[in-house]
Amino acid sequence: METVSTAKAHGGVQGVYRHNSAQTRCEMTFAVFVPPHEAGTKLPVLWYLSGLTCTHQNVMDKGEYRRLAAELGLIVVCPDTSPRGADVPDEPDNWQFGSGAGFYVDATQDPFAQNYRMRSYLLDELPELIATHFPADMSRQGIFGHSMGGHGALTFALSHPGRFKSCSAFAPIVNPMQADWSAGAFARYLGPDTSAWRAYDACALVEDGKRFDGDILIDQGTADGFLETGLMPERFKTACERAGQPLTLRMQEGYDHSYFFISTFMDDHLRWHATRLT
Amino acid sequence: METVSTAKAHGGVQGVYRHNSAQTRCEMTFAVFVPPHEAGTKLPVLWYLSGLTCTHQNVMDKGEYRRLAAELGLIVVCPDTSPRGADVPDEPDNWQFGSGAGFYVDATQDPFAQNYRMRSYLLDELPELIATHFPADMSRQGIFGHSMGGHGALTFALSHPGRFKSCSAFAPIVNPMQADWSAGAFARYLGPDTSAWRAYDACALVEDGKRFDGDILIDQGTADGFLETGLMPERFKTACERAGQPLTLRMQEGYDHSYFFISTFMDDHLRWHATRLT
Repeated sequence: METVSTAKAHGGVQGVYRHNSAQTRCEMTFAVFVPPHEAGTKLPVLWYLSGLTCTHQNVMDKGEYRRLAAELGLIVVCPDTSPRGADVPDEPDNWQFGSGAGFYVDATQDPFAQNYRMRSYLLDELPELIATHFPADMSRQGIFGHSMGGHGALTFALSHPGRFKSCSAFAPIVNPMQADWSAGAFARYLGPDTSAWRAYDACALVEDGKRFDGDILIDQGTADGFLETGLMPERFKTACERAGQPLTLRMQEGYDHSYFFISTFMDDHLRWHATRLT
Repeated sequence: METVSTAKAHGGVQGVYRHNSAQTRCEMTFAVFVPPHEAGTKLPVLWYLSGLTCTHQNVMDKGEYRRLAAELGLIVVCPDTSPRGADVPDEPDNWQFGSGAGFYVDATQDPFAQNYRMRSYLLDELPELIATHFPADMSRQGIFGHSMGGHGALTFALSHPGRFKSCSAFAPIVNPMQADWSAGAFARYLGPDTSAWRAYDACALVEDGKRFDGDILIDQGTADGFLETGLMPERFKTACERAGQPLTLRMQEGYDHSYFFISTFMDDHLRWHATRLT
């Protein structure tokens, strides 16, 4: 692991790091904020998964998580959203597929199956690196994210019971099998058999009996331009109600899909996780 | 004035606006955050001047001012740092001159004198626009900024007694006449006679008898790579001590020159201003 940069922020350290990933077969970059802490202390780890087109950097710049994460004593890990590089198949003009659009799946279709393994990268490989290089208590992990990253957080938490002690999302894609901006990518990463897609769809996971052992928090802006065609949180609400999965869905009047929305409710989400992790 | 974008944030509105400036003879863009407020209320205005290479957008993305400005009821105005456009003389490869490097002066030298009038733009023209289009109480204005923008804030406040009720700076260029990264620009904007530069140098202004009617807050990181050659805050401290100008200079251990530093101490500065404006 190589350190790209570090800076003191809110008493802690915001770092950016790089390593060669065995899962994605390329160099991966990620950001980690370590709050101020006493030497020898192990801290809970909160994973933030970002949305389409983002890298590790967008939420690091605009998410406004450091002040309260420092106060609450949370390590915040912000990974990239896809494999990248000259050797990775990509469609640079397509913001809904390829670079910046890994959709947190393990692709099974050629030529994407060689690199697009974001699920295994984030659930198996990167946690080992975090445990090795940072003062992380891996028995206390939470996960959240935005949009495509909200989809990642929900599907990881639902499909890996016990792994995460807290889960929340900002404007998540809850039903990517059906949504305009994700169904095309699923077909190409996972193939035409849609039964294989269900492991990567929060609504389908709940319908198929998967549960997160805890309550889930979702914030969704009512002025979000993707609300009707891409996000459709009421589908997840219905699935959770039918299945008895505890969910708090808050519709936030007048907020859009941007980081202005994320940063506004960041404090609420950090407190939600801290309550369950500390 | 044209609205470029607006988004709800922390209960208020973060907007970006554009207008044709008579002072700089080009289109100027600026950002304004209006906190939640009751209709008819007039709110204090806090001006944030940005540093070299920045536009209105950097601090809007990375400054983390909205949460507390919303709570404190402050309008925050973030202007650009120079005139811009095809008709404005520039040196695109020079980050210390031209676009992004207006240094908050009224240039007197050709060909820059036609456009590089950031002082008059910010002290005369933009305030009228703010007063007209926003719920602003122009009798309660504060000013702060970072680096070159800290220089702007200090020199504006010192040279216009009564205009601003509060003044602070993050890592300001306090003695631009002498500093590596500014003396060259001063020569080209203002000509070879350095007596004309003193109106744009915080140390010289204090030496020449100018005073800000109040205490000034400066935060400076000790790990700032520009500390020794560009910033030299102790020069301003000495000048203020000799002149009886109240100043609080805080050296912040381990912080660099970045927005990680600015955002860490943003809350302190917002409270400093709010105490004096509300």
